[in-house]
Amino acid sequence: MRIAVDAMGGDYAPTEQVRGAIEAAKLDGTEIILVGVEERLKEELSGYDIEGLPITIVNASEVIGMDEHPAFAIRKKRNSSIALSMDLVKSGEADGVVALGNTGATVAAAIMKLGRIPGIERPAIACPMPNKEGFSLLLDAGANADCKPLHLLHFAIMGSIYMEKIQRIKAPSVGLLNIGEEPGKGSELYINAHKLLRESDINFIGNIEGRDIMAGKVDILLCDGFVGNVILKFAEGVGATIFDILKMEVEKSPLAKAGGALLKPSFKTLKKRMDPAEYGGVSLLGVDGVCVIGHGNSKAKAVYNAIRAACQGVEGNVVNAIKNYITHLGDGMGDE
Amino acid sequence: MRIAVDAMGGDYAPTEQVRGAIEAAKLDGTEIILVGVEERLKEELSGYDIEGLPITIVNASEVIGMDEHPAFAIRKKRNSSIALSMDLVKSGEADGVVALGNTGATVAAAIMKLGRIPGIERPAIACPMPNKEGFSLLLDAGANADCKPLHLLHFAIMGSIYMEKIQRIKAPSVGLLNIGEEPGKGSELYINAHKLLRESDINFIGNIEGRDIMAGKVDILLCDGFVGNVILKFAEGVGATIFDILKMEVEKSPLAKAGGALLKPSFKTLKKRMDPAEYGGVSLLGVDGVCVIGHGNSKAKAVYNAIRAACQGVEGNVVNAIKNYITHLGDGMGDE
Repeated sequence: MRIAVDAMGGDYAPTEQVRGAIEAAKLDGTEIILVGVEERLKEELSGYDIEGLPITIVNASEVIGMDEHPAFAIRKKRNSSIALSMDLVKSGEADGVVALGNTGATVAAAIMKLGRIPGIERPAIACPMPNKEGFSLLLDAGANADCKPLHLLHFAIMGSIYMEKIQRIKAPSVGLLNIGEEPGKGSELYINAHKLLRESDINFIGNIEGRDIMAGKVDILLCDGFVGNVILKFAEGVGATIFDILKMEVEKSPLAKAGGALLKPSFKTLKKRMDPAEYGGVSLLGVDGVCVIGHGNSKAKAVYNAIRAACQGVEGNVVNAIKNYITHLGDGMGDE
Repeated sequence: MRIAVDAMGGDYAPTEQVRGAIEAAKLDGTEIILVGVEERLKEELSGYDIEGLPITIVNASEVIGMDEHPAFAIRKKRNSSIALSMDLVKSGEADGVVALGNTGATVAAAIMKLGRIPGIERPAIACPMPNKEGFSLLLDAGANADCKPLHLLHFAIMGSIYMEKIQRIKAPSVGLLNIGEEPGKGSELYINAHKLLRESDINFIGNIEGRDIMAGKVDILLCDGFVGNVILKFAEGVGATIFDILKMEVEKSPLAKAGGALLKPSFKTLKKRMDPAEYGGVSLLGVDGVCVIGHGNSKAKAVYNAIRAACQGVEGNVVNAIKNYITHLGDGMGDE
C-alpha cells in the first residue's frame, strides 16, 4: 500500500505530518511518499531513526496556504504539494492520497487531477458523525453548497458503498435529513430527493430529523453540503460550549468541584468520542481515486489515522465499487 | 393585557394549559381567554380556586391534532380552538395568542386569520437558542423550507426589532449562518442574501459558521427555515446524547460514579440552560398580531412562560415596529 501524504498542509506541517507518516510506516508497513519542500522534509526526518522504513520524498516547490482561494490556487501553483500528491495517484505511483490543509483546494485538486467517476456529477465529502453506538456517515459535509435531487441520490449510493466496504455493514440504512418525517416535508430539493431515494434500491428508511443526528438511528445521514457543513461545525462547537457552561456551574460549589475532579477521566473520554477529528479525517467520494482529508489542526495521531483511513479505502476498493454501481444504475440516469 | 390561549393543543392539554394560565392570571394579572371545549375546561378549572381571577372561556367545538395536515385542517375545522383563538386577536378581543399544539397548523391559522404584515412575504419563526451568555435569536426556525434572499433580509429586520424591543439590545448584531466567513461563500441563496444584508442598515456583522451558533457571537442567527429547523432539533437532541454517553462512561468506575452524584445539581442546571423549551416558546414574526408557539410537550411552567412571552411581545409593540420599518424600507423593495 502506497500513500502520498501532502506534508505541507495543515497547522502543524510538516512536523506532525512527518511524525504521523513515520508511525504508519512503522506500525502498518505502509509505504509513504511525503510530498513537500524536500529540504524541509529531510531536516524533519533527520530527527528520527527511519532506517529501513518505506518512506520516500517527492519535492514540491510550492505550498497552498489555508486562506488561498481553492480553484485559483490550484491553477496557479502547478508544483504545489497537494497538486503533486494527486499526480502520484493519477500516475499510479501512489494508491491513495492524504491531505490535511486547505479542504477546498484539496477537493479542487482531486477533481481536476483525478477526475470524477463517470456518471457522478458531484463528488461529496463523507464525514464520520459520532453517536451513542459508534458513528454514522454524514454526507455531503461541505463539498456542494447547491445540490440537485440526483446529487443526493448519488451521495446516498456512495455512502452506502463506503459503509458496506469499509465498515462491513450489510445494506446500510440511509436517512434523509429533513424537517419532518412525512414524505411531503421539506424544501423542493428534499421532497424530490425523497422520491428518487424511494425508487432506488438502496436501504432508504425515509426522512429523519435534527434530533436523530446523534441518536444512531441510521448508518448514513444524507443531506446537501450546506446543511451538512453547518451541522458538522455545530457538532464541533456544541461540545465545547456545553463543557464551558458546565465548568461555570461547577465553579459555583465546592462539592461540585470535587465531583468535577472525579469525573475528569470520563469527561476526557467523552470529549474524544464526540470529536469528529478523532475519526481520521473525511473521505472525498466520487473522484477517481482514494482521497482522505484530515482536519487542519491534526497532530501526529490524527495524521496516522487519516493514513489508515486511506489504506482502508484502497483495500475496500470503494472507487471501483462506486464505478460498477453507477455504470449499472440505468440508462442515462447519471448523465442528467 | 388579554391573551387568548389555545387550551386544546399540546401533549398535556388542557390540564397543563389551564394550570399555566391560572399562574399567569394570579402572578401577573394577565387576562386569560381559554379557548377550547367548554365542558372540558370548566371541569379542569373546577379543581382550582379561581375566584376573582380574570379567566374566561370561549367554546371551541373542534380540535386540530398534532398529526393533522396544517392548511387542510385549518380550512376544514372552522371551529377549532386554534382558529377561534386567532379570531379573538383579529377582532381585538385579545391582544395576543399562545398556542402549544400543531406548529404548522398554528402558522397556517395565523397567516390565514391575522394576515401578513404588508410587505412581509414570509412570516418566520424566531426561537431563542441558548449560549454561554444567555441566548441568541435563531430565525427562521422552520416556517419556510424554501426561501429567497429578500425573505432572509426580512427575517433579519424582524429579528433585530424583536431583540431591540423585547431584550432591549441596541442595534443587535446579525450573523448569517453560512459555510465560510468570506462574503462569496455558500449557496446561491446565501451569497445573494449576504449582498442584500450588507446594503441594509441593520447591524450585519457578516457570515458566521456552525461552530459559532452556541458561542454567543451574535444576537441574531439568521438562516432559512430548513437549516434553522434542523439546527434547532439537533440542539434539542445533542444534549441528551452527550448526557447518555457521559452516563455510560461514569458507570464504568466507582470514583466517577461518586463524582457524578456530586455533580447532579450542576447537570440539572446545565440541562435546563441548554433546553430551548425553557425559554417560553417561539414567536411567529411577520403576521399582523402577537403569536407565541410553545413546545407540544409543555407543562404548566412552559405554558406560563409562553404567556409571559406573548405579553412582552404586546408590550414591546413588536408588530407595529415591524410595520413602520417595512413601510419606510424603500419603494417596492418589500413587494418583490
